[in-house]
Amino acid sequence: MNLGGIPILAADPDAGLSGNALPLLREIAERLKRLLATGEAGALDLHSLPLTPADRAWLKARLGEGEIRVILDSDGESTLDETACPGVWWVTHRNLHGAVSVELIEVAFVPELVKAHPEDVQNGLAHLELLMGDLR
Amino acid sequence: MNLGGIPILAADPDAGLSGNALPLLREIAERLKRLLATGEAGALDLHSLPLTPADRAWLKARLGEGEIRVILDSDGESTLDETACPGVWWVTHRNLHGAVSVELIEVAFVPELVKAHPEDVQNGLAHLELLMGDLR
Repeated sequence: MNLGGIPILAADPDAGLSGNALPLLREIAERLKRLLATGEAGALDLHSLPLTPADRAWLKARLGEGEIRVILDSDGESTLDETACPGVWWVTHRNLHGAVSVELIEVAFVPELVKAHPEDVQNGLAHLELLMGDLR
Repeated sequence: MNLGGIPILAADPDAGLSGNALPLLREIAERLKRLLATGEAGALDLHSLPLTPADRAWLKARLGEGEIRVILDSDGESTLDETACPGVWWVTHRNLHGAVSVELIEVAFVPELVKAHPEDVQNGLAHLELLMGDLR
């Protein structure tokens, strides 16, 4: 088969971009400034914004990949991926069938879901103490 | 083949236990109390303690499995597994060959390695702003 006659087209890197991804990147930078200045964390729900699949891919490529992945298994799997920008986490929640139900960018020193809450720690400790009582 | 004559032996659940695992469990409970009272986090290096493989398995079973796993990929893979006791994390660091180099129990609301540090967030933000400048 001779493919020599087929013209090679360079893929347009801007194909499918809506123009909404760059303003979102600026918003992420503003949130990072706020995080550093006040400690205030926040999240941007990607599904509530007018983003195309190309926008999301562009954004993901700009933010890059970090070293940390958090996997949470509770009524479906959630992944919280650190990006190459520390403090920016790409969060994906899936339902029990594996379909993406929520996708958001969290700007925080630590994603909210990773933190153990004091009341849960208290309950776990009470359970541990009961268990140790039985082992005496 | 007739296996009827082979006596069935119940496995001794205490086989291989050194007696050091229960005191360690008590120490973990003390650390949890301190965490709740003062916010002070800490870690217990399992390789520096006189524990047998059976002790470690016993401890792992008593602490149970939680819903969160953190994977950190940096000069070898580290896993930080939440136990069923919130605030107690089973941390395993591996070298580039996959061999376990450090194994510890961390008692903390959030494992230290998961936190983005302000200076890293500042550097990431500076990088993001440079990138956005080029995109203008």
